[in-house]
Amino acid sequence: MQIAIFVYDHMTALDAVGPYEVLSRLPGADTVIVAEQRGPVRCDTRKLALVADAAIDEVSAPDVLVVPGWSGSRQASLLRPGPVHEWIRGVDQHTTWTTSACTGSLILAAAGLLAGRRATTHWLATDMLAELGAVPSDARVVFDGKYVTAAGVSAGVDMALRLAASMAGDQTARAIQLGIEYDPQPPFDAGSPTKAPAEIVQSMRALRDFIIFGADAA
Amino acid sequence: MQIAIFVYDHMTALDAVGPYEVLSRLPGADTVIVAEQRGPVRCDTRKLALVADAAIDEVSAPDVLVVPGWSGSRQASLLRPGPVHEWIRGVDQHTTWTTSACTGSLILAAAGLLAGRRATTHWLATDMLAELGAVPSDARVVFDGKYVTAAGVSAGVDMALRLAASMAGDQTARAIQLGIEYDPQPPFDAGSPTKAPAEIVQSMRALRDFIIFGADAA
Repeated sequence: MQIAIFVYDHMTALDAVGPYEVLSRLPGADTVIVAEQRGPVRCDTRKLALVADAAIDEVSAPDVLVVPGWSGSRQASLLRPGPVHEWIRGVDQHTTWTTSACTGSLILAAAGLLAGRRATTHWLATDMLAELGAVPSDARVVFDGKYVTAAGVSAGVDMALRLAASMAGDQTARAIQLGIEYDPQPPFDAGSPTKAPAEIVQSMRALRDFIIFGADAA
Repeated sequence: MQIAIFVYDHMTALDAVGPYEVLSRLPGADTVIVAEQRGPVRCDTRKLALVADAAIDEVSAPDVLVVPGWSGSRQASLLRPGPVHEWIRGVDQHTTWTTSACTGSLILAAAGLLAGRRATTHWLATDMLAELGAVPSDARVVFDGKYVTAAGVSAGVDMALRLAASMAGDQTARAIQLGIEYDPQPPFDAGSPTKAPAEIVQSMRALRDFIIFGADAA
């Protein structure tokens, strides 16, 4: 069972590494980190790089595709047509599950896979998901057929555990959850725009384009 | 403010990437991924590599040190004296915070930093922490002076948010939490040995040495 985790310049590391840490521990999982080209891919902070062990032309029929989100760059965003969209549409012909974390769902939508489908994304990007033809949800994880999308960044862990349960059963998912000791105890109840202090939500909304697209947002 | 995230062969990716995703977003953070040598470091599943952008001899006085845990290898474990222990003790002279996630606390303890201090680790390794001279706690995050330790894997996110609050204030920590949309909704309540089904806990305990030390455990 091949699990392809797509990585790219300016991606958010935890969007990929959260699902990876769960899905790679499924029985029979053969995980591959894949990018347009093999080699290091630098994340949004520019302070961490992950290594792609395969190029997209080497991965044609994964069982599971995971597409993470990004921040801080319009140039690096994958909302425009191109070889990555072609690859995503091609592998989607073969997947059992096509998934995303955070703004990764915008990429799936831009590639044409979420038209009319319920999906979620980072809370700052909900309207963009609608503009790309999906039916946005504010749920943390959304299943619509084989398309599974997660909200911002850390939601990829919850998505992957739900997917693990669908793929391998509840007991296996619980064992993985115990293995990664996922018994979350956040120090604040501020992880969603309905819970965080209004002034924080407002200031992030005001910076939305900069957060997602960076200094080249204009 | 330099935040040094130490990486090494057979480390668990989320142990490092969880704290990274929080701490690198602190105002003024200058995050560096550091290993014995520069270059790719392959994680425990062997399916993901992170890139070290600096070698330990290039990072001498970070403000924050983060040491992740590992699994599946005795050869790769850092419980033995050597240059990494010397480096950890050296940088600890300069840190404001010396931290770990998962079995990373065993490395801090083996380097001599946790003698008589309260600390936590992955639930499977609690007795090993005691053998290394620390006073084990089953708390998810433990502060003892400047030493901050987290329980298994995903606990590094909770640790980093508490640390962010200590370093930059509660509002900044809440903003980071909202940015990574950390509003956890695990599908099961199985993330600690007190909550998971007993048969899963027992089977993982039976495999403890293999999980931590791999096939060379004997």
